Amino acid sequence: MREPPTPIRLGMVGGGQGAFIGAVHRTAARLDRNYVLQAGALSSTPQKALASARDLGLARGYGSWQEMLDGELALPPAERIEAISIVAPNHVHFPVAKAFADAGFHVICDKPLVHTRGQAAELARTAHEKGIVFGVTYNYTGYPLVKEARRLIREGAIGKLRKVVVEYHQGWLATRAEAGGDNKQAEWRTDPARSGAGGAIGDIGSHAENLVSTVTGLELESVCAELTTFVPGRRLDDDATVLLRFEGGARGVLAVSQVEVGEENDLRLRVYGETGSLDWRQEDPNRLVLKSLEGPARVLTRGNGYLGDAAKAASRIPPGHPEAFLEAFANVYAGVADAIRGDPRADYPTVADGVRGVAFIDTVVTSARNGGVWTPFSSAG
Amino acid sequence: MREPPTPIRLGMVGGGQGAFIGAVHRTAARLDRNYVLQAGALSSTPQKALASARDLGLARGYGSWQEMLDGELALPPAERIEAISIVAPNHVHFPVAKAFADAGFHVICDKPLVHTRGQAAELARTAHEKGIVFGVTYNYTGYPLVKEARRLIREGAIGKLRKVVVEYHQGWLATRAEAGGDNKQAEWRTDPARSGAGGAIGDIGSHAENLVSTVTGLELESVCAELTTFVPGRRLDDDATVLLRFEGGARGVLAVSQVEVGEENDLRLRVYGETGSLDWRQEDPNRLVLKSLEGPARVLTRGNGYLGDAAKAASRIPPGHPEAFLEAFANVYAGVADAIRGDPRADYPTVADGVRGVAFIDTVVTSARNGGVWTPFSSAG
Amino acid sequence: MREPPTPIRLGMVGGGQGAFIGAVHRTAARLDRNYVLQAGALSSTPQKALASARDLGLARGYGSWQEMLDGELALPPAERIEAISIVAPNHVHFPVAKAFADAGFHVICDKPLVHTRGQAAELARTAHEKGIVFGVTYNYTGYPLVKEARRLIREGAIGKLRKVVVEYHQGWLATRAEAGGDNKQAEWRTDPARSGAGGAIGDIGSHAENLVSTVTGLELESVCAELTTFVPGRRLDDDATVLLRFEGGARGVLAVSQVEVGEENDLRLRVYGETGSLDWRQEDPNRLVLKSLEGPARVLTRGNGYLGDAAKAASRIPPGHPEAFLEAFANVYAGVADAIRGDPRADYPTVADGVRGVAFIDTVVTSARNGGVWTPFSSAG
Amino acid sequence: MREPPTPIRLGMVGGGQGAFIGAVHRTAARLDRNYVLQAGALSSTPQKALASARDLGLARGYGSWQEMLDGELALPPAERIEAISIVAPNHVHFPVAKAFADAGFHVICDKPLVHTRGQAAELARTAHEKGIVFGVTYNYTGYPLVKEARRLIREGAIGKLRKVVVEYHQGWLATRAEAGGDNKQAEWRTDPARSGAGGAIGDIGSHAENLVSTVTGLELESVCAELTTFVPGRRLDDDATVLLRFEGGARGVLAVSQVEVGEENDLRLRVYGETGSLDWRQEDPNRLVLKSLEGPARVLTRGNGYLGDAAKAASRIPPGHPEAFLEAFANVYAGVADAIRGDPRADYPTVADGVRGVAFIDTVVTSARNGGVWTPFSSAG
Repeated sequence: MREPPTPIRLGMVGGGQGAFIGAVHRTAARLDRNYVLQAGALSSTPQKALASARDLGLARGYGSWQEMLDGELALPPAERIEAISIVAPNHVHFPVAKAFADAGFHVICDKPLVHTRGQAAELARTAHEKGIVFGVTYNYTGYPLVKEARRLIREGAIGKLRKVVVEYHQGWLATRAEAGGDNKQAEWRTDPARSGAGGAIGDIGSHAENLVSTVTGLELESVCAELTTFVPGRRLDDDATVLLRFEGGARGVLAVSQVEVGEENDLRLRVYGETGSLDWRQEDPNRLVLKSLEGPARVLTRGNGYLGDAAKAASRIPPGHPEAFLEAFANVYAGVADAIRGDPRADYPTVADGVRGVAFIDTVVTSARNGGVWTPFSSAG
Repeated sequence: MREPPTPIRLGMVGGGQGAFIGAVHRTAARLDRNYVLQAGALSSTPQKALASARDLGLARGYGSWQEMLDGELALPPAERIEAISIVAPNHVHFPVAKAFADAGFHVICDKPLVHTRGQAAELARTAHEKGIVFGVTYNYTGYPLVKEARRLIREGAIGKLRKVVVEYHQGWLATRAEAGGDNKQAEWRTDPARSGAGGAIGDIGSHAENLVSTVTGLELESVCAELTTFVPGRRLDDDATVLLRFEGGARGVLAVSQVEVGEENDLRLRVYGETGSLDWRQEDPNRLVLKSLEGPARVLTRGNGYLGDAAKAASRIPPGHPEAFLEAFANVYAGVADAIRGDPRADYPTVADGVRGVAFIDTVVTSARNGGVWTPFSSAG
Repeated sequence: MREPPTPIRLGMVGGGQGAFIGAVHRTAARLDRNYVLQAGALSSTPQKALASARDLGLARGYGSWQEMLDGELALPPAERIEAISIVAPNHVHFPVAKAFADAGFHVICDKPLVHTRGQAAELARTAHEKGIVFGVTYNYTGYPLVKEARRLIREGAIGKLRKVVVEYHQGWLATRAEAGGDNKQAEWRTDPARSGAGGAIGDIGSHAENLVSTVTGLELESVCAELTTFVPGRRLDDDATVLLRFEGGARGVLAVSQVEVGEENDLRLRVYGETGSLDWRQEDPNRLVLKSLEGPARVLTRGNGYLGDAAKAASRIPPGHPEAFLEAFANVYAGVADAIRGDPRADYPTVADGVRGVAFIDTVVTSARNGGVWTPFSSAG
Repeated sequence: MREPPTPIRLGMVGGGQGAFIGAVHRTAARLDRNYVLQAGALSSTPQKALASARDLGLARGYGSWQEMLDGELALPPAERIEAISIVAPNHVHFPVAKAFADAGFHVICDKPLVHTRGQAAELARTAHEKGIVFGVTYNYTGYPLVKEARRLIREGAIGKLRKVVVEYHQGWLATRAEAGGDNKQAEWRTDPARSGAGGAIGDIGSHAENLVSTVTGLELESVCAELTTFVPGRRLDDDATVLLRFEGGARGVLAVSQVEVGEENDLRLRVYGETGSLDWRQEDPNRLVLKSLEGPARVLTRGNGYLGDAAKAASRIPPGHPEAFLEAFANVYAGVADAIRGDPRADYPTVADGVRGVAFIDTVVTSARNGGVWTPFSSAG
């Protein structure tokens, strides 16, 4: 376990009272002592933002992200925050990320990155020009055994890739939770104005896409998508199945849903190559199954000496002592921290992942709107 | 356990030396003592057919199915076989089934039923006209907990259906097994002349379709299919993913493959309704998971008193004493035997299942040949 | 799959109407066509015995086992039964087995073999003197992967053995099922006059002992036992935990119960050696986990080419097509059939296993009656 | 998720460079922001202690715990640490805990608490007299579903308890790891002078005992123990099996080992009552299986609304987002923090748990030394 002597000074936008994901980000940032949260504009309502900051004992609470930007810039560089974490609903991502990036702060932004390809491209350009670190919290790629799967594929352990099956099953939107008035999560995630053009495909389909892309390195060529809205009155898709064609001939299927009653957070990735296969499940994240043309299946477990360097570095405790969601999330924060500290091998999802994710959602929505036709994919802005 | 005092006299076509599925059918027929195998034309090569019959100690071995048909008809009715089991490669199904059905024998035929919609319709017509029992060995629907899933859905335990995910993962054709000269299974199953227009979609996709149809009762409306041949030189698809639209708005995805290295026989069905969901896996067939909007998941296990009548009748031994593939196969044979004995509630896949399966393969192949377009489905001949 | 041309002619004692285990034995005998059941004295009540024989369509039904013995001996050798299967309650085993063995019939007897060490020794002596085959249906050792575990240990795959953990968890006697008047199984199994001095330890503890002995080859040296009767009014133990010391320094623990609510038939064996370990569960019998000092756990599955000869010979169908309880039971019957046909490598539990099992129950009961003291074990009569 | 505005000021003894468990404690203390680590005497070697403090960026590093005690007492109360966490090897626990407790600091101490019953009693007395909070890091009881199991039992969900099966399987000491010179963990844990009279029984058997006691509330009456040292040259037991008798008639078995090759950290608890049973495994900690006399098994998962208050309070994120070892450890720290802040319902293992654990080890060792005889248990000093 790495516990750096000097944490990075962090600010946060969103994640105040009543929000869920803010605490996850803060815990992830704190878990390895890579960051110390010093400032925040934690809500779009100034009063609530300030109250939330007090609740958390923040050194500097602000009523809005604009105030925070001004306030921090007014501080001496050695005191002001070094990085900003954006955990507000999707529609807030672009203006905040753009403003803080322009001012030279490192950015950590939740996914999906933004609503449009144009916004995504602009953020990528800004990050490049300003030389900042820009991480996107595709947190599932932070799991050690996901990194191990990536390594095994890169090193040829399963041969040339043929087939990808990625699934993400949830059930929390099986009823019209957004209509009850007491579920902020459900409200903004099913609202096109805040969530973007994708419902389930944006919220969790983007995780699935990122997992596939990160682990396999395959380049998507075209998609054929079926988006469905099962719950009456809902304005975005709550279920999506997408056929995938990759460059080089590999094929795949991506199936995600938020209306599958009883499913919790069942993200699973199976990758099949010419000589082997890999199988990983988020709900059982400390195991990775490797099968080969000959011999019995092998069950790799987290924390073991036989794993590659990235998986080892992403583990904290011995095998059999499970690590889970928050630790994987912390690994994304740790990767960004490595990058901020100048480590050239820092391992985290970058703004390029964010750009590709936005393009993926856009392409899928286009395919579905055209009745489910094969539609070429390009990550370009 | 039911052990009838008087077994039904059975004949068999195919399944001689070197065949795999013949012994499975014979074991299934024998397991509950529902049948006694008395006659056989066990190979397309007369000498081999006769030798196979001797190996098995059959009362009457024949050199060909035509000889068997003549020979049995020449016997007094009380001595001749009552039913014929057809376990030869697919292209043999039609002429044999037609001839024996015409002669008034009950027919048990392997799946997929035949190569064309026209043949299928003709068999259905003949079966109806002759008043014979015609079973198709979609053996996976013989599992007790598959019957339980069907019951739960019929009784509304998971509400109106929304979504079906059916998968069938195999890896035994990941290399070009048909080229080695020592794998009869691989040879005929990848040969369009014998297997029909579908490769994986015909061999195992048809099982998946039947499982969905049997359990859910949903009527398929249209499909969008991606068929792939991954192994160079192979003449049929070895991987298939099909998007499904059902009448009434339910959606689904069917993903089958025979090139997924290390996968054995991983048939899995998940069905999601408005208020619950069901999950069953063939490799772990004594468990059925039922989830609901409220409360913890329930794991139903085979043999328990809380199960419905069909599941109970299809079990032989107490919970915790697993039953498996051969027992499920025997349940199909038992269902046909019930029908032959006149039980109006006999539970088995009929020629109508066979007809629908042929139409399914045809529709999927059409969709794929047209580049992966949505194609309406009809079970008509 | 082996299907011999000429089945062995079999008789049966016990297993008539209302019995459970009789049908299991009959199915196991029939499954591979190794036997044909021709005669039976299926109940201790003559009328019921005859009615049961009629129900099953037996060629020769008898009112008692003595009548059957006389009747069969009166037939020409080529017509009379060759082997007798004894599936009546335990107290019936000795007289029947003795009489039929004396008359030169092969014997298949349910477990535990008999009530006393003296009876067991006498049967072993008789079997030896008469040169008959004598099998005891410790059916769990019939599972292919149990045979594979035995092979791996013999071949040193896990090194010198250190530790054995064997468990058998059931819950069907958690309430006083024997008092309801409708559960014959519960009645005789909790009745010392019929079941013997052991309750759970006799009924399922003996299976656990046999599994350990068969798989590991370890010789038991002494035991320290805790027998408990949890259900008020019950006359035999319904729960047993036994500490085991083996010759050569290995240690073990055997824990069995029939009052563990909700447990079905959870027999599990773990064996630990100096360099590896094995783990097998009866409720998931198609998997065997092999762990080693280095590298990931390997999950061996039934039916694969990498398994040893015994495991291969005991499988019928390909990997992923599960086999289960009845197939394993049939493997015991097949092993006895092999022996009857003169195969010197026939693989089945013999009368020596029966003798050792009786001694085990006796030693455990002695240890417990003395307050739970370490008690030396000897298999001698 | 609770993130208190003002963390408790914490000091630490032990856990410096090369130690494993120190970082676990620090992460657990930090995870929910309940503590801020300000001072430390992190090694028994002064230079290493100071270097470790610098590495961690501690406000106040000390060369020894005595220096730390003096140094902190010299600070104004509002600046000095409020609690001390003792993570050094076992033999250090007593003097440090005694000295800091005497000085009025709250104490968090690793398990097993101390070497002797007398020391344990003295700490309990001191804690009481000084009115301090004294927590012992039996971290496995911090898992939410362990708390849920405790609740279900208290509320009668499985009826009067009959049987407990607790297991803890590890394999990391299967070879003589303590002899290699590079494994500090193995060295002190197998050294009686540092570890105490128990090897595996002390290190992990004490966890198992605490889990049983916490979840069931049963009072241990007597034990019969088998302690084994399998690895030649080792000075303490590395394997232990203990029969348990509880007041009121319940029985149990505790089986722990550190030489079971390939096992990682497989702590499992099964509890059987008259009407139900519970099953929980540390390596799969987000699931708890509840079985009943009627109906299917139910699988409770962490984070759901149907769980009791304690389980809910111990969870941070929604179901399907797994939490694991570090989160459970953090729950122990959170419970101690609650107590320090005066919450009367604070939920954590106290010095009384520590006292009982020491008595358990002592009783087991006594039973084993006397050849494995039933030995009465008393928690008294």
